[in-house]
Amino acid sequence: MKKNTRQIHLNLFLASMGHHEAAWRHPDSNLNGVYDFAHYLEHARKAEAAKLDSLFLADRYATSPTAVQYGALGGLEPHTLLSALAVVTKQIGLIATVSTSFNEPYNVARRFASLDHLSKGRAGWNIITSGTDSEAQNFNRDRIAQHQERYERAKEFVEVTTKLWDSWEDDALIQDQKTGIYADKDKVHELNHKGKYFSVRGPLNTARSPQGRPILVQAGSSEDGRDFAAEWAEAIFTAQQTLEDAQAFYSDVKKRVLLYGRDPAYVKILPGICPIIGKTESEAKEKEAELHELTNPTYSLLQLSNRIGFDLTAYPLDGPLPDLPDSSEIAGHQSRTHLIKELADREKLTIRQLLLRLAGGRGHKKIAGTPMQIADELEAWFVGHAADGFNIMPQLMNGGLDDFLEQVVPELQRRGLFRTAYTGTTLRDHYDLPVPVNSFAKAKLYQ
Amino acid sequence: MKKNTRQIHLNLFLASMGHHEAAWRHPDSNLNGVYDFAHYLEHARKAEAAKLDSLFLADRYATSPTAVQYGALGGLEPHTLLSALAVVTKQIGLIATVSTSFNEPYNVARRFASLDHLSKGRAGWNIITSGTDSEAQNFNRDRIAQHQERYERAKEFVEVTTKLWDSWEDDALIQDQKTGIYADKDKVHELNHKGKYFSVRGPLNTARSPQGRPILVQAGSSEDGRDFAAEWAEAIFTAQQTLEDAQAFYSDVKKRVLLYGRDPAYVKILPGICPIIGKTESEAKEKEAELHELTNPTYSLLQLSNRIGFDLTAYPLDGPLPDLPDSSEIAGHQSRTHLIKELADREKLTIRQLLLRLAGGRGHKKIAGTPMQIADELEAWFVGHAADGFNIMPQLMNGGLDDFLEQVVPELQRRGLFRTAYTGTTLRDHYDLPVPVNSFAKAKLYQ
Repeated sequence: MKKNTRQIHLNLFLASMGHHEAAWRHPDSNLNGVYDFAHYLEHARKAEAAKLDSLFLADRYATSPTAVQYGALGGLEPHTLLSALAVVTKQIGLIATVSTSFNEPYNVARRFASLDHLSKGRAGWNIITSGTDSEAQNFNRDRIAQHQERYERAKEFVEVTTKLWDSWEDDALIQDQKTGIYADKDKVHELNHKGKYFSVRGPLNTARSPQGRPILVQAGSSEDGRDFAAEWAEAIFTAQQTLEDAQAFYSDVKKRVLLYGRDPAYVKILPGICPIIGKTESEAKEKEAELHELTNPTYSLLQLSNRIGFDLTAYPLDGPLPDLPDSSEIAGHQSRTHLIKELADREKLTIRQLLLRLAGGRGHKKIAGTPMQIADELEAWFVGHAADGFNIMPQLMNGGLDDFLEQVVPELQRRGLFRTAYTGTTLRDHYDLPVPVNSFAKAKLYQ
Repeated sequence: MKKNTRQIHLNLFLASMGHHEAAWRHPDSNLNGVYDFAHYLEHARKAEAAKLDSLFLADRYATSPTAVQYGALGGLEPHTLLSALAVVTKQIGLIATVSTSFNEPYNVARRFASLDHLSKGRAGWNIITSGTDSEAQNFNRDRIAQHQERYERAKEFVEVTTKLWDSWEDDALIQDQKTGIYADKDKVHELNHKGKYFSVRGPLNTARSPQGRPILVQAGSSEDGRDFAAEWAEAIFTAQQTLEDAQAFYSDVKKRVLLYGRDPAYVKILPGICPIIGKTESEAKEKEAELHELTNPTYSLLQLSNRIGFDLTAYPLDGPLPDLPDSSEIAGHQSRTHLIKELADREKLTIRQLLLRLAGGRGHKKIAGTPMQIADELEAWFVGHAADGFNIMPQLMNGGLDDFLEQVVPELQRRGLFRTAYTGTTLRDHYDLPVPVNSFAKAKLYQ
């Protein structure tokens, strides 16, 4: 198929058992898989066979005894797992989440450069700032830094990592056995970065990787998050409940991208989608009800309280959501808290109803229906400039993922909206993103 | 073969092209392999076919334009590469170097627990404190911390990581789909560690891994290093030039281990060995001379100056090593500096001669000879309680590794000194090391 129109991008958001919080209790789930590589490989290979753009793993840096009592939390560290998947897959992209609040730029730059080399150009970095005190408490602090400060650190962090990825020019590696010149020292650069958060001399001790650098992905949708994304992100994973909200977000972010002098076509916006697929709409709804039956309100409430940074356990489950602090004033996850409040208001949900609405995707858009209905909705969002593609969050990895890949993807292909074969080899190829120009090489042109 | 006697342990110290600093210039070297996973996989599979205990990758956190001009420095980050090797090998152990000076315990604990899960119990951590200012300058500092302070931090670092690995008891994971209990919250523990360098609440968000924790490996041989090793190490990679020095080190460390109340049998001492193998001794020496011919004194001198933390570039190459500061007073790599001074003194070497002696293994023991001669020497060290095994450092990965695996290993097997088949599945099995008792579970017994 020759590609001559705008195409949908599809990312598979990997989860051990599925994105529904009760997925692990479903009889189709294979619990031995949580810590077994073969389980993840099976899903990665299915996604690659279906020609998806990429796989993605989220991350948190904490858990608690009470959280794991009822929830299938914890698992393999994303970058470690994706490094392993890199050498047993051939084409699909690999996007690992790593926080800028609990790491150092030199380490992160090396690990992603290494992943990009290992995968021959298929690495992506989902940049998060981490928003909970429980995570900060595993890293020498009592509380998480304020929202704006976290993003300020994130900006400097990404400035430094991108310079480290540029510290070897494309043709710096010479490896001339006869003359004994291994690298061109004029094309390997110190950064001598000295900023508010980091001092990094450089150069990196890994030569420039196939993509120049991993693709930069971002997920926060707050003011600070949008501003950060506009400056740096090449793909954005976002949570949007309605077509109108998604269109407004899409348009706002693309405008901000322009203000940073970047091309909006090179920032792909992918809302999260939780598909529940049945032969009929009512079969889909039954599948959903079956999962909802397996939820535990105690656990769900704990998760929601953590997510919004407000303890809801004293409030009646069948009453409304109480007044929450203004989301722009909280330290934690601002945009998700805002979305959850809006959802509860708009649909007049009790806390119990809200918990079920969130059980399937923590605030991401749920679509229950036939493959045709789901394809219609995805097409409407794509054509309506609410999305450049979607972050697919199956409720169940075993079964639910297959439904999407075998029933929805072929329908999108029939409509000419999605590739039937990979047309390139790197993640940048799949997402139609250019290889960034090396900043040190560029600077030389204007010396 | 039934194992009824003490057996040699063999670790392959992986290097991209080889441990001789001019290896990359040798015509047998495949320079495309430096950043190509297939290259490392080939060597890993050979080592596994020969039944070696483990693979190991060293690490540094810096390089410079002048260093890479002549030296094949830089490559893939060790933990990333070994995570990939974990899923395409089946039995050999995987030991990654990670520094305690430039990382956080929570991250390191997760990554090694994940590697141990991925490999089904084959992970090892070579714990280093990193000893050069150039590395510190990539992590927000001007100079490296003093020797003793680095080890103090390392001790607290390992205390915290081991507690994190213990934070899930062996049977904490319940995963009962019927009752909805995912984990036994009384068997998942907070640490609430508050120390001089770290505050970490825990628990880890990865369940206990097959080996309980990775095997802990250590390489520094200074006073501080030996003391650290005695408390924590389960294997020690050390550089020793003579049988007598190796015996003294072996005996000293095993005694220190006893003082910490540990069993000396569970601390394996593996000196580094740089074998150069020929059909005759003179063929071996010719091979060595061929590599020495390819060295560059400018580069060698720069490397030596960095290693000992003393700039030698102003001294005549054909003169003696100048008086160096007392090694116990330097901030950097104390034990290696001490070894290099002793070597130069003992053999009355000029700087130029010293550079060649170090070109093959940076101070590790070189043995050039026939397979029989090399096996004799390894046996003498092993039987003479100078070693429990060896850290094998081929001068060339292409060719030199094959010589060792195909000619020396079978000779050790014929002598009944080395396994002909793996008798267990984990790295602890290979090294005859017990799975550590979980400290939280043990504490309960005495409540």
